[in-house]
This record gives sequence, C-alpha cells and structure tokens, in this order.
Amino acid sequence: MSTHLVIMAGGIGSRFWPMSTPERPKQFIDVLGCGRSLLQLTADRFGTLVQPECMWVVTSAAYADIVREQLPQLPASNLLLEPCRRNTAPCIAYVSWRIKAIDPKANIVVTPSDHVVMDVQEFLRVVASALRFTAETDNIVTLGMKPTRAETGYGYIQADMSVPSARNREVFRVDAFHEKPDLATAESYIRQPNFFWNSGLFVFRVSTIVNALRIYAPDISVIFEQLLPIYGTPAEQQAIDAHFPECRSISIDYAVMEKADEIFVFPASFGWSDLGTWGSLHERSPKDANGNVCIGQDIRMVESRDCIVHTTEERRVVVQGLDGYIIAEKDDTLLICRRTEEQRITQLSQE
Amino acid sequence: MSTHLVIMAGGIGSRFWPMSTPERPKQFIDVLGCGRSLLQLTADRFGTLVQPECMWVVTSAAYADIVREQLPQLPASNLLLEPCRRNTAPCIAYVSWRIKAIDPKANIVVTPSDHVVMDVQEFLRVVASALRFTAETDNIVTLGMKPTRAETGYGYIQADMSVPSARNREVFRVDAFHEKPDLATAESYIRQPNFFWNSGLFVFRVSTIVNALRIYAPDISVIFEQLLPIYGTPAEQQAIDAHFPECRSISIDYAVMEKADEIFVFPASFGWSDLGTWGSLHERSPKDANGNVCIGQDIRMVESRDCIVHTTEERRVVVQGLDGYIIAEKDDTLLICRRTEEQRITQLSQE
Repeated sequence: MSTHLVIMAGGIGSRFWPMSTPERPKQFIDVLGCGRSLLQLTADRFGTLVQPECMWVVTSAAYADIVREQLPQLPASNLLLEPCRRNTAPCIAYVSWRIKAIDPKANIVVTPSDHVVMDVQEFLRVVASALRFTAETDNIVTLGMKPTRAETGYGYIQADMSVPSARNREVFRVDAFHEKPDLATAESYIRQPNFFWNSGLFVFRVSTIVNALRIYAPDISVIFEQLLPIYGTPAEQQAIDAHFPECRSISIDYAVMEKADEIFVFPASFGWSDLGTWGSLHERSPKDANGNVCIGQDIRMVESRDCIVHTTEERRVVVQGLDGYIIAEKDDTLLICRRTEEQRITQLSQE
Repeated sequence: MSTHLVIMAGGIGSRFWPMSTPERPKQFIDVLGCGRSLLQLTADRFGTLVQPECMWVVTSAAYADIVREQLPQLPASNLLLEPCRRNTAPCIAYVSWRIKAIDPKANIVVTPSDHVVMDVQEFLRVVASALRFTAETDNIVTLGMKPTRAETGYGYIQADMSVPSARNREVFRVDAFHEKPDLATAESYIRQPNFFWNSGLFVFRVSTIVNALRIYAPDISVIFEQLLPIYGTPAEQQAIDAHFPECRSISIDYAVMEKADEIFVFPASFGWSDLGTWGSLHERSPKDANGNVCIGQDIRMVESRDCIVHTTEERRVVVQGLDGYIIAEKDDTLLICRRTEEQRITQLSQE
C-alpha cells in the first residue's frame, strides 16, 4: 500500500493582496521570506514520507507553469488541472478517482498548499500515525489543531473524547463540524477540551473517500466515475475540461465530512497556521524588538512598531513613524493599510 | 542688447528622496505630475522672453544627457558642464564669462531650475521690468518674494523702501541679506513691510556681474578670466574640467550679493515656491476633499487625510487609514514618513 500526497493548490489568496494576486496567489509566493514558496514548503514537509511519483498537485490550469517551475520533481502526469474553480469536493473527487485508476489501494493525505507548520517532526509523526490508522480502517481522519486562542477565522471540530479509537489512542470520533464562530462562541469552544481547529488536512484510503463521495455527493461522483477510461490517457485533460465544470461548487467539509458517520479527528499540535490573515503571518514570523515583521531584502523601520512589511522584490523600503500597519508591495502595486482593517483588503483590491 | 537666460540645474535635491535621487534630482522630475519636469517648466516659463540660442543651462556633467533629452531646443554649445559641485558663485562666474565671450552686452536673468511659479504672466512682467532696469544701470536686481508666512526655510532680503529707484518705481535698494531665520525671527520679519524671501532669481548685465565678481571674488574671477581664449572652442570642456575644481565652493549670495553696494530688490508676488520641502509641494498642489495630494497614475486614498503620495511610475497605490504622511516611491525605493519628520529624510536616505 503506497502513501500518496495530494496538494490542493487552486486558491487565489485574495486576502493577501497585493502580495498575493490572482496571477500568482499566496501558495506560490515566498510569504515567509525564507527562499521557498508555501507550495514548496508544503512539498518539502512531506519529503521523507512520500515518493515523488506519489505526489499530486491539483490546481487551476492558469497555474500549471508556476507549479512545474516550483516543483520540478513532480511527474508531469501528477499535475491535475482544473478548468474552473469548484471548491474542494470536486478537486478531491478528481484526484481520488485519478489515483484509484492506477493504485486502488492508495492511502492518501490531502493538504492545502498555503499553510505553515512549525514543528515538522511532530507533523510527520501525526501524519504517519494517521496513515497507519486509515490503512487499517475504512475511516476518514481529519487533523484537528489544539486551539491556542479564540480564533474566529477557523472552523471547529467537536470530538467525542469519551473513548479513543481502539486502533489509535490519539484518534477520536467526530461529533460535529462547526463553521467559523463569532467571538463569544469561539471563546466557549476553547474552554472545552474537545474542540479543535479544522486544519483542512485529511487522511483516508482512496476506496474510503470514493465510497463516501458516491454516497454523499453522487452527482459529483458520477462525473469522475464516467471518466475512468480516460485517466492517464492523452484525452484526460480535454475530458476534464468538458466535464469538471458540471460539478457544483462545494467544499469537502460540506459534501462529505459533515454528513458521513465514520469521521475521526486526530488532535495535534505542530505549530500550524493557515496563514489566512496578515495577522497570522505577523504572529508566525520573526519580529524585531518593536514587533515589526520585515520580509524583504532591504527594509528599515524607524520609530515604527507592530508593522508587517512584505516586498517580494529587491526593493529598498524606509518606514518612519508607523504603528500597526501592513505595507505590502508587489510588481506595480503598493498597499498601506491598518492591521485592524485587514479584513477589507479584498474589497480594497477590487474597487 | 540680447536677453540671456541662465538656468542653474546642478542641485541634488536630497530632501525629496526617494522621488529625487542623486542620479535624477528633483529638477529633472515631473514633481507636479503635469507631464513636464521642473527644468522643463522653468524653460517653458521664459519661452516668450528669450530666444533659444540665448538660453544656457549649467549643470553637473553627470546630468548632461538628461538635460539634452529634456530640453532638445537647447543649443549644444549652451550646455555648460561642471566637473564638480562648487555652489552658485563659480556656476554664475563660469556662465557669465562664457556669455561675455560672445555677447559682452548681454542682459541676463539667472534662475534656479527647480522652483515653481504659479502666475507666469506676472512673473514675466516682473522679469521684463527688471531686465529693462538692468539694461539701463550697472546694478544687480534680485527678485524678492512678498512673504505669505513666517517661513524658516528661506533667506530674507531687507529693503530700504524709503525711496524707490528713480528708473523703476518697483525697485528698491537692499539694506541687508538675512540667512534662514528661526521661527521668532521669521515672525518679526514678516510683520515688517520691507522683508522679502530671497528667491534666487537674479537679473544683471554680464559686465555688471563680471565686475562684481572681480571685486568681491577675485580668486574665482581669475580662473574664468584666464580661460577667455578657450570659451566656445573644442578645448573648453577639458580646460573647465581642469580649472573649475580650483574654485572654492561658495554661493553667489555670500560671494557677491551680501558684499556689493549696488544691489536692488524687486518685490513681487507671482505664486513662487522653491519646492524645497514636501510641505511646500503639498501646499502648491491640488488636494482632494481630505487634503491629500496624489501625484501618480492610480492612487486611491481611503480614510486618509493630509497625505502626499508621489510615484513617478505607473504604479497602483492603495492607502488606508493614514493621516499626515509622505509616501514616495521611485524605482526600487519606497519611503513612508510622517510629514512632521520630513527634515530627516536626507538622513533617512543615507543610513
């Protein structure tokens, strides 16, 4: 039984404009200023766990060249291109049927491409443990992050922690998925020991997810089922381009996770962030003595504090007298915005 | 008697960094966002008063190509190149001897290249009137700006206004030149009707300034006197490169104006600014309803006021929640600085 890695890389990262643009979204950018894009860091993270021929990337057709450039080790046939955006359920359905066509016993870990993990060793221990669990059971495992604050930007997983799984003492049955809560609700969640952040990391065997999709999303399943003869053939892309758009747009959480019975959660702590906000990037990044995060070649902060400056170019930046601002610059665009107003960035970018 | 125009274009505009850089200082930049550089606006301003063959530009050798590109009408022989910076006295000495060599009766107006004038009609009236005055007398005229505020960034001219010149009722003898004052002194100056800002605009016949330099700056005069045989010959530049550096660095105000007796001032009001500070640029530029000055192609201000944004590139800028800042961007440099701290920009640019 081979372990396959599926990296979902089709997001557009609009909250990180202008660092992230529709032409080159967040996952393809060296957000942390470490020399590797978030996609590359994601692939690097699984390096020892998955053979290159078992790594898959699903993304938009528009990003094909970026993925090929950033992940040269990815086999050409393992880059799956969506002709349009349909959220995560059609994405996972496509790659699952595609993998099933060549490896019906595949054990799969699915990951977003634009998250960060600080403790990779613990991360790999958890993933390997979850993979052993799914290898032996027909269950889906979600990785639940032990919450460290009343975050309203994440969905929560409520676990039944009365009895762990007999096969893995770290794995618990899921009672419910909860959408992003308001602050009071988030505060009540984190006071309870059985609520976890939904990381978007899933582990399952291919037969498990295919069966679950057949039951809970038959309209999506039938589309990829009918394409079985063409997977891996030169006709694949044309057929996908023709039929993928027929899928409704729905997340895997809505389509399967919240409906299926045999969903388990693996509570874990490995310094995870979805980097969904400038605030989370600020939190995850090294700061100077005044709380400034400076990602760029030549950034000088004078009498400034708690700012985050991000420039992907070799650009000289001098900031004087700013407190709590985002300064982001890319190509032909400059954004200066209070950190407290970052939820408006998508709107600001579009007006 | 021909009227000659001398444009001094050798400054480095360090206070406007990064808009102004040593490679392309302020006078060569479209500071006002009107499609013409300050140098071009200066030449344009005199368009009807001076024939192209009587226009002269003195600048650093490093800026020769920029001047040729921006002023294609300037005759090649009328571009004088300083091999090093020696302030305005050697600059004016060089061009005065150079003009004297071909037109000993020349009547000359000298202007900085990086100032703005709002009321060009009144400006031309004043300059023409001053030129008529110097055509008939052996006097030097400085244009004094009627002050509108207690500006500490300008030098002041104190006039004896008891009796105007018999030849021009608008012209008065100068009692004293005063350096940039502190605020209390500036306030006392502007309460008196005979104090004017020193604009750096001078009018004189070539014989007048040459004689004044011979008397008050003989060490400088002798250098340009000895070069008389080579002006206008192919040997000129080499001789200037060899001997110009021998001049001490001194302004024409110190070298001549403050010492000579026959100095007159022509008080005037034509909406002049030396654009010496971001504040003066802010003051001189059209503002939006919130007091923002936006010079650039695509600048959007949200919940921001009293800012000045300058980008010479086709760059998109979105600013949210800033009050009283300078945001200036050029080439590979971005500066964000409180307007109240603008006097530190030169320092910030150098660290």
